Amino acid sequence: MTYARPVLEELDEPECLRLIASGGIGRIGYSGRYGPTVMPVNYQLYQGTIVFRTTPDSATDEDLRTGIANAEYKVAFEIDDFDIAARTGWSVLIQGSAHHVESEDERVSMVDAGVDPWPGGGRDLFMRITPSRITGRRVGQTG
Amino acid sequence: MTYARPVLEELDEPECLRLIASGGIGRIGYSGRYGPTVMPVNYQLYQGTIVFRTTPDSATDEDLRTGIANAEYKVAFEIDDFDIAARTGWSVLIQGSAHHVESEDERVSMVDAGVDPWPGGGRDLFMRITPSRITGRRVGQTG
Repeated sequence: MTYARPVLEELDEPECLRLIASGGIGRIGYSGRYGPTVMPVNYQLYQGTIVFRTTPDSATDEDLRTGIANAEYKVAFEIDDFDIAARTGWSVLIQGSAHHVESEDERVSMVDAGVDPWPGGGRDLFMRITPSRITGRRVGQTG
Repeated sequence: MTYARPVLEELDEPECLRLIASGGIGRIGYSGRYGPTVMPVNYQLYQGTIVFRTTPDSATDEDLRTGIANAEYKVAFEIDDFDIAARTGWSVLIQGSAHHVESEDERVSMVDAGVDPWPGGGRDLFMRITPSRITGRRVGQTG
């Protein structure tokens, strides 16, 4: 099977933010107890930050809690959308710091904005990632 | 909008391997020059290991090359499949060590097995992840 030669294009930050604006499934990457860890979460873009909920006292919560105690702790957040048949798609990588949302006002704003736990049931711990670096790439086909 | 209460189920290793056996898009997580990094790649499961290709001298290649020079270097590899409308899906997380495939025989075996660069064009550097830990979870809905 042969394909047209694929082309990899770097995306600028406004285009990255546009692509991820609708929310959905993203993957958080962080350094956890067993080394690098990647877990899917249901996120929303909220005031330029990535917001999602997790379960208090889960392994992810404990790993992030341990990390966040270190002011230099960074996480990654990846969102993508590929069409395997067409061999096209894009991915966005956000790198930045993570923190818990402690303020009740901020929490209420996020619920109002529609931030949604998904795998649900008592997941009332909000996490917020403030981007320090946003990069993206699109894979396409030449004609 | 209300949903049945979602249920999170842990998956055992044979089930994880079954789910990821067909290959496709996965995401490698590693510690890179800008901190935790997550990048999508087109992988295949090959003899119980994760195999994919990358571009020599790309940022990912350089980061992994730097890391692999340290014998303790670990990476994560995540594969998932979600049905957002139905709010169901699964994810698998592989944690282990990564290395380059240096042997020509091993490289030929992988090409024969169908390992495919996808974003293509001169991507002839094979990476292989040997799992040390395989975990997975399924999100479903109660009736």
